[in-house]
Amino acid sequence: MAGGGGTRFWPVSRTSRPKQFLDMLGTGKTFLRSTFERFAPFIPAENFLVVTNAAHKQLALEQLPELTERQILAEPLGRNTATCIAYAAFRLQATAPDATMIVTPADHLILNEHVFREVVEEAAEFAGSHDALVTIGVHPTRPATGYGYIQTGKPVGNSGMHQVRTFVEKPNAEMAQTFLQSGDFVWNSGIFLWQTGVILRELEKLMPDTYQLFRSADAAYGTPEESDAIARLYPECRGISIDYAVMEKADNVYVRCGDFGWSDIGTWGSLYDYLPKDDAGNTAGCEAVTFDTTGCLIRMPEGKLAVLEGLSDFIIVDTPDALLVCPKGNEQNIKRFIDAIKFHKGERHI
Amino acid sequence: MAGGGGTRFWPVSRTSRPKQFLDMLGTGKTFLRSTFERFAPFIPAENFLVVTNAAHKQLALEQLPELTERQILAEPLGRNTATCIAYAAFRLQATAPDATMIVTPADHLILNEHVFREVVEEAAEFAGSHDALVTIGVHPTRPATGYGYIQTGKPVGNSGMHQVRTFVEKPNAEMAQTFLQSGDFVWNSGIFLWQTGVILRELEKLMPDTYQLFRSADAAYGTPEESDAIARLYPECRGISIDYAVMEKADNVYVRCGDFGWSDIGTWGSLYDYLPKDDAGNTAGCEAVTFDTTGCLIRMPEGKLAVLEGLSDFIIVDTPDALLVCPKGNEQNIKRFIDAIKFHKGERHI
Repeated sequence: MAGGGGTRFWPVSRTSRPKQFLDMLGTGKTFLRSTFERFAPFIPAENFLVVTNAAHKQLALEQLPELTERQILAEPLGRNTATCIAYAAFRLQATAPDATMIVTPADHLILNEHVFREVVEEAAEFAGSHDALVTIGVHPTRPATGYGYIQTGKPVGNSGMHQVRTFVEKPNAEMAQTFLQSGDFVWNSGIFLWQTGVILRELEKLMPDTYQLFRSADAAYGTPEESDAIARLYPECRGISIDYAVMEKADNVYVRCGDFGWSDIGTWGSLYDYLPKDDAGNTAGCEAVTFDTTGCLIRMPEGKLAVLEGLSDFIIVDTPDALLVCPKGNEQNIKRFIDAIKFHKGERHI
Repeated sequence: MAGGGGTRFWPVSRTSRPKQFLDMLGTGKTFLRSTFERFAPFIPAENFLVVTNAAHKQLALEQLPELTERQILAEPLGRNTATCIAYAAFRLQATAPDATMIVTPADHLILNEHVFREVVEEAAEFAGSHDALVTIGVHPTRPATGYGYIQTGKPVGNSGMHQVRTFVEKPNAEMAQTFLQSGDFVWNSGIFLWQTGVILRELEKLMPDTYQLFRSADAAYGTPEESDAIARLYPECRGISIDYAVMEKADNVYVRCGDFGWSDIGTWGSLYDYLPKDDAGNTAGCEAVTFDTTGCLIRMPEGKLAVLEGLSDFIIVDTPDALLVCPKGNEQNIKRFIDAIKFHKGERHI
């Protein structure tokens, strides 16, 4: 799933190049590329499907030259994860109906890829042999309010799987603290595994409108007509998340938990936590000369020098056509900024 | 005098283009051009001499196309104002020995050019008819610590001129307050008027070493040999200001005071005072979207957007290869910044 149009990393991410197509961590690889390489050791390249906005199809192909054009599922517009997953499932029904699907966001950070692979392979084995919707959970390390939580239930034999008691949307700070202490809540990583036939049956039951829309184009999947059919039906679909549409309602949901160093890197503040820093807590790797400046995320274009004084816990992000300087704490403000920019300055800088 | 190599307006001013060659006020004219146009209504173009660093000779000619190449006196290196003035005086002795000189910095702001012209014309008439070193004083409007002061003495008839009791270098805050209250101290604008013969006689008496160096090249002034002669003798001259070398020691010094809205615009902070501002006290004219941001000087490249939050009384100055964000109050810090940049990053950004 590489469909996000994210401006949460404005001014670096733009509608023309959202986060998943950027190297936000300075590793030399974009999130999309890192995601591909995380699975490529145990998934053949021809088995990948990338769902992304039609405007970013070429970007995806450039960053994943191992894939062919028909492996990029182009969305004419964003309709959230349930629609994205329905599209991929219908394609697979036409081309590989017995496939077990591994559904993953293309813009997350995973630090321990070895542990991650073990968890995914076990979960895939379970999903492949059970009538199950499997989600990957992450043991929380702090009372994060920006993530969804899953309350785990009984273990399923020795499979490492647990039943799911309930899904909880982003909690407030107090509730998040309670979840952390209780020990049976895990973060919802947004990574799912199931057989193609299982998710299609659940979509038919729980999202009948969307299911029928996709069903109506059955003859087109995997043919040259697919793109026109998708362009026609996609706008009719409801924009709704797979969690809300399916996972919270289905009764065959299981969770496999792991500790593989996961973050959705959803804000500049969360990115800061994962970047290397100097002794003053300022992110390293930029040409910067700092005075009385601590705890700052500094991101400059290659070769450009920043001289900073008197800034504590700020974000300083510079690009050729836009500069952002704001306190690191106010993570939700980026949306306010974007709205204000659109209002005062139009779409040019977005 | 357009010889400054100023980096006080870094990162906008650079050694390759110091302040006098920049439009710091956003008027559409550089300081050098504004200075020329201030005098051009009553001084013929062929009577101007511009003393500047050899590296900036072409810049000066581009900005003052009314002048010819021989009107640009190129210094091989900076040797402060006394040496600069000596050079111009020796050139004039060869080409216009009876001239009254008006010596002016090329990087100051003067708001009321009408009053300024009256003051200069009266002072020029006095200097032209007296054995006098005349300086232009400005009635102080605040207890500035960044300027030199002149204590005025007895008036000279009805000429508007006063004798000078003493020159005072940049005072501390307490002393500046006393000066302001006393009423007989004025700011030293650095603008001087005298006959060529008078300043040469004073230089001979008070700076004999420098005088003899220039004297030794007497045959060269105004000829094709001048440039070689200057290249040879200039490095031998002491770098010393005309105030310290001559004005403070001579006994024929007079001051003409005026109120023509003068500033030497020596720092980003003083520039801020003269720029148009929005309701929040942020300088206007940039593409900026601000939140909880007040009293800031914001300067961005054309077409570039700044989004700023949580900054109070900051300087935010962006250029293609360097960004400065620092508190507006700490005006002396720019020098520290420059030193640190040279130390850590070399000369590339200076």
